[in-house]
Amino acid sequence: MDLKEIANELVAGCREDRAKENLEKLYAPDAVSVEAVDYSGMGREMQGREAIRGKHDWWEGAHEVSGASVSDPFVHGEDRFAVIFEVQGKVKETGEAFDMREVGVYHVADGKIVREEFFY
Amino acid sequence: MDLKEIANELVAGCREDRAKENLEKLYAPDAVSVEAVDYSGMGREMQGREAIRGKHDWWEGAHEVSGASVSDPFVHGEDRFAVIFEVQGKVKETGEAFDMREVGVYHVADGKIVREEFFY
Repeated sequence: MDLKEIANELVAGCREDRAKENLEKLYAPDAVSVEAVDYSGMGREMQGREAIRGKHDWWEGAHEVSGASVSDPFVHGEDRFAVIFEVQGKVKETGEAFDMREVGVYHVADGKIVREEFFY
Repeated sequence: MDLKEIANELVAGCREDRAKENLEKLYAPDAVSVEAVDYSGMGREMQGREAIRGKHDWWEGAHEVSGASVSDPFVHGEDRFAVIFEVQGKVKETGEAFDMREVGVYHVADGKIVREEFFY
C-alpha cells in the first residue's frame, strides 16, 4: 500500500471502529506510539503492535465515548500524514466530561506505519 | 521563551496578521520550511527566515483571503507543536475559490522554531 492508501485505510478504520484490527494490517511489528505527555504514568513512548493494542484497550475501558469525528488525512511528502481527531464523552471512573481535539502524525516506511505521534 | 510561549505567540501572530513580524522573534535564522508537495515548482523545502518571508509575500500576493481561522496549539513533548489552519478565499490570477484546511507542525530548539512542516 502506498502512503495515500495507508492513510485512507487508517482513517476508515477509526471511523468504522476497527482501528485495532488495522494494527496488524497497517503497522510495523515494532511500531512506536508517542503521546504528547505522560498522561498514564507509564512514559510517553510505547513500542510494538501489542503495546499499541494495549493502549486502545485501556482507552476503551476507561472512557465512555458519546461522539467522535476523524478528519480525512493530510499528507506531507512521501512518508507522513496527519489526522485530526475529535472525541466527546466522559471518564468512566470520575464521570468527568471531556470534549477533546488532537492531531496524530503518522510516519510510514516500507509500506507500514512505523511511528505515530499525538499532539494535544 | 518556552515551547508553550512560542506556540501561543505563533498562533496570536497568525490571528492578528503579524506572522511576518514574528519571523524575527520566533524563528532561527536558518529555519527550514517544508511544504507537503512542491506546489510552487521551487521544491518542497526552503531554508532561512528570508526565504520563509518570501513565501508569505508570495502567498499574500497570489491569494485573496475572505476568511481564516487558526486553532490553539497542540503540543507534543518539549520540542514540537501543531496548529490547524483553515483559510477560505480565491486565487487572484484564476478567480478559483478555495476552502482549505491544513496542519502545520513546528519543531523548536534552543527557544526558536527551527523547522515548520505543512500537511494537506
